[in-house]
Amino acid sequence: MTTSTASINPRMRTTAYEALLKRLNKIADLQSVQNLLQWDQDICLPDGASQARSIQIGTIAEMQHDLSSSNTTRLLIEAAEAELQAEGFDNDSDEVAMLNAARRDYQSKVCLPTELVSRFGTLVAEAQEVWQQARESSNFALFQPYLTELVELSRQKGRYLGFAEHPYDALLDEYEPGMTADELRSIFAPLKQRLLDLRGTFSTAAKIDDSFLRLNYSTEKQFEFCKRLLESMGVANDYSRFDSHTSAFTTSIANCFDVRLTGRIVPDYLNMAIFSTIHEGGHALFDRGINPAYARTPLAEIHSMGLHESQSRLWENLIGRSLQFWTYHYPILQATFPDQLGKVTLEDFYRAINKVQNSQIRLEADEISYSLHIILRFELELALIEGSLTVADLPAAWNQGFEELFGTRPENDSKGVLQDVHWAGGAFGYFPTYVLGNLISAQLLQQIKLDIPTLEQNISEGDFQPLRQWLSENVHRFGRKYQTKDLVMRITKSPIDADAFCTYLDEKFSRIYQVH
Amino acid sequence: MTTSTASINPRMRTTAYEALLKRLNKIADLQSVQNLLQWDQDICLPDGASQARSIQIGTIAEMQHDLSSSNTTRLLIEAAEAELQAEGFDNDSDEVAMLNAARRDYQSKVCLPTELVSRFGTLVAEAQEVWQQARESSNFALFQPYLTELVELSRQKGRYLGFAEHPYDALLDEYEPGMTADELRSIFAPLKQRLLDLRGTFSTAAKIDDSFLRLNYSTEKQFEFCKRLLESMGVANDYSRFDSHTSAFTTSIANCFDVRLTGRIVPDYLNMAIFSTIHEGGHALFDRGINPAYARTPLAEIHSMGLHESQSRLWENLIGRSLQFWTYHYPILQATFPDQLGKVTLEDFYRAINKVQNSQIRLEADEISYSLHIILRFELELALIEGSLTVADLPAAWNQGFEELFGTRPENDSKGVLQDVHWAGGAFGYFPTYVLGNLISAQLLQQIKLDIPTLEQNISEGDFQPLRQWLSENVHRFGRKYQTKDLVMRITKSPIDADAFCTYLDEKFSRIYQVH
Repeated sequence: MTTSTASINPRMRTTAYEALLKRLNKIADLQSVQNLLQWDQDICLPDGASQARSIQIGTIAEMQHDLSSSNTTRLLIEAAEAELQAEGFDNDSDEVAMLNAARRDYQSKVCLPTELVSRFGTLVAEAQEVWQQARESSNFALFQPYLTELVELSRQKGRYLGFAEHPYDALLDEYEPGMTADELRSIFAPLKQRLLDLRGTFSTAAKIDDSFLRLNYSTEKQFEFCKRLLESMGVANDYSRFDSHTSAFTTSIANCFDVRLTGRIVPDYLNMAIFSTIHEGGHALFDRGINPAYARTPLAEIHSMGLHESQSRLWENLIGRSLQFWTYHYPILQATFPDQLGKVTLEDFYRAINKVQNSQIRLEADEISYSLHIILRFELELALIEGSLTVADLPAAWNQGFEELFGTRPENDSKGVLQDVHWAGGAFGYFPTYVLGNLISAQLLQQIKLDIPTLEQNISEGDFQPLRQWLSENVHRFGRKYQTKDLVMRITKSPIDADAFCTYLDEKFSRIYQVH
Repeated sequence: MTTSTASINPRMRTTAYEALLKRLNKIADLQSVQNLLQWDQDICLPDGASQARSIQIGTIAEMQHDLSSSNTTRLLIEAAEAELQAEGFDNDSDEVAMLNAARRDYQSKVCLPTELVSRFGTLVAEAQEVWQQARESSNFALFQPYLTELVELSRQKGRYLGFAEHPYDALLDEYEPGMTADELRSIFAPLKQRLLDLRGTFSTAAKIDDSFLRLNYSTEKQFEFCKRLLESMGVANDYSRFDSHTSAFTTSIANCFDVRLTGRIVPDYLNMAIFSTIHEGGHALFDRGINPAYARTPLAEIHSMGLHESQSRLWENLIGRSLQFWTYHYPILQATFPDQLGKVTLEDFYRAINKVQNSQIRLEADEISYSLHIILRFELELALIEGSLTVADLPAAWNQGFEELFGTRPENDSKGVLQDVHWAGGAFGYFPTYVLGNLISAQLLQQIKLDIPTLEQNISEGDFQPLRQWLSENVHRFGRKYQTKDLVMRITKSPIDADAFCTYLDEKFSRIYQVH
């Protein structure tokens, strides 16, 4: 492993900057440890140890917080800034980007009292356990007190972090720096209308048969096939591991070196395993692709969840649900499940995995409905944080909002308000980044197709190397160096907007549904 | 989970003691985290992340060391001691035991410079990876530089820790407090002679056929059977997990709550999986059985490895290799492997698993030879630490010493000096505790049979509850409260000696070999 101090810039030999880096390395190690404690809790921890684990996470979070927010850290940042200025470092240099990231992290930490951070860490670990039970038994009441405290602590967090217009902005900024609720509203309002229109068009068109996706599929064989997909994408075992879990997620325990994925594998819906795995594979490639010289520093992170999500969604949908992708992989899948798929053609399979349908479950939604699911969550969490909606009223508000968008009500809370882990994880402001990811992924693909004219040919031959290299060079390696808006502008010469995404959906589904 | 502060003693409400406990809790959490980092490295970590992991372990070890050895900790210990004295606490109270443990830990930490601890932690993580490769390729040269540095750092450690007679005593004291090389020599010299005599007697007796233990056994089915054994012993899933690994070990990530075992399962030697699992199960029951009021304190540990090992060996050998144990379990094993064992009688199986034979491998040794394997290691590590043997000369010394005891030389270093992980883990002074475990286990069993007259009957019916309860009440629950010597005296009214063990071996093997 290359350590950061030496490799970032050989001419950089000033004391304060180096001392700062050493401190940032320690802070990053404590983050790695928390990531492991969390991953282990999800994958390995015996049931009886969950309370002990919450306490351990609380302890490490508190130590990290103390270190990040200490006066010494502030003084080191100030001294290092003065050094860089005196030496005339370029604003585009890694060193200046490092300082900016360090300052941002310091400021976000210093606003928060240690007790709040510790309580939040402990609560989240407990709440996630309870949420699992609540979801299994569709019992919102079980989860309600935890969510109530999480909302309250998040509102407190928002006030400590500070905001110009809306308390939600402060929370959103953690996941999508520089973005605001107002900006999201101005992107989401027209997007919502265009998506409803698109869905209307295609859902009244000729019906697509996807019943063969809902036969009984061996979970062991699905797991093996998903491992094959990851291999094909280039997610290699030497830095990753893959497990089956009740929800799909990627935990980057140490960026560049230790990235762990799960796929959600269910016996009766083949899409779940396949697309959750490809999705997480896209995240994993990003975490792995960050410049190793940034390891153990704030630059070895991601600038925004929207940008990260653009990678998982690019792989999951724009690549993973393309005809070219399955031209290569479908024969392998067919050979794995000859009883279920032996008589299904590639074209039928392709149409089935792209079927437009109303699902109550976000993770089962088609590409058009998906963003509508998110817009519902965005509106609800915004209301929770501004205090215009109470947690007690949340299930009813969910059901009503869902009906307005989809014309039906969820069967129960397990398939409604309890379906996602995010709020149990205290992650308010996270959901909208999924939509931003959709928008950015389509903007990037437009550019990739210009830069790699053979892209579709390559993919249909199972050759993902040119795509992976493009993503690595243009996106992954920068880690957290650039603002997402700036990076999108740098690559596509355009701000983030919904045009590319809506055009992509329109063209793809017009062809699939033969509607013009 | 009961936290310690409130539950230890309701009348204890003094400030310094409580502040000290809070600090000890934090130190214990950092130990839990290191245990997890290590366990994860063994079981889950992707290959490419091992260097990153070494650095993480080094960071946490350093933070823990700084906290443990800080002046504040010393001042809190002193203030708490003054408080307890003023309030007239009994020497047998938990509070006084807690203070003694805290002081001992502080003193052992304060002797060691932070850099040494950090370097040691990093080196051990690297050395274990390299040792695995070296063992696989029987290439001692690969491992030699790491072992050389480990010996050198251990000698340094010994000097910092301080000793009266022998630098080895300082290292031994970490695993077996109060024990010295001289005491061990005085126990081991006659033991060695008695074991050589016993082995001579039984190895020239009629040969026992154990070839059926070396047929091909499905590792999956072995794993399932081992899980069944753990269940039977009462090692429950709600606080433990069980994995298959290239070496068997127990990692107690958080005593009382999170104890993880591995079994070593090989396809061509059935004993390996069964007895490594029962052995680790014995360790797990101890870690689980510690009084939960001690959680996150120095009392939630074990006083000595010899005492801990007495539990694993009691289960593995005195219980797990008894006729009663297999009266209950052999029909289950036979049903699992009808092709291999269908025609083998219980009596033949019992004799086979107790066959006296010269193995080059410690983990395959019979109960008589086992302690001889350890005595060899003890003599060699003693010589390494006192500097009368160099690491470069170690393989030759191993082979010569082995020949003196067993009459043959190891086939290669992989089956000789490279077979054990301990030295790669920097654990000099650990091996002799295995022999102490053997001796104590036999002393305890003598007493258990007096206290539970129905013991053999219970075991042959698969009822381990009375045994488990006896161990829990007399041994486990005390954690680290008592000195091992004192606990053995308290239970058996006798000091630690080899009589019970040699008598047990003589009686058991005389019956098996029908020699009188």
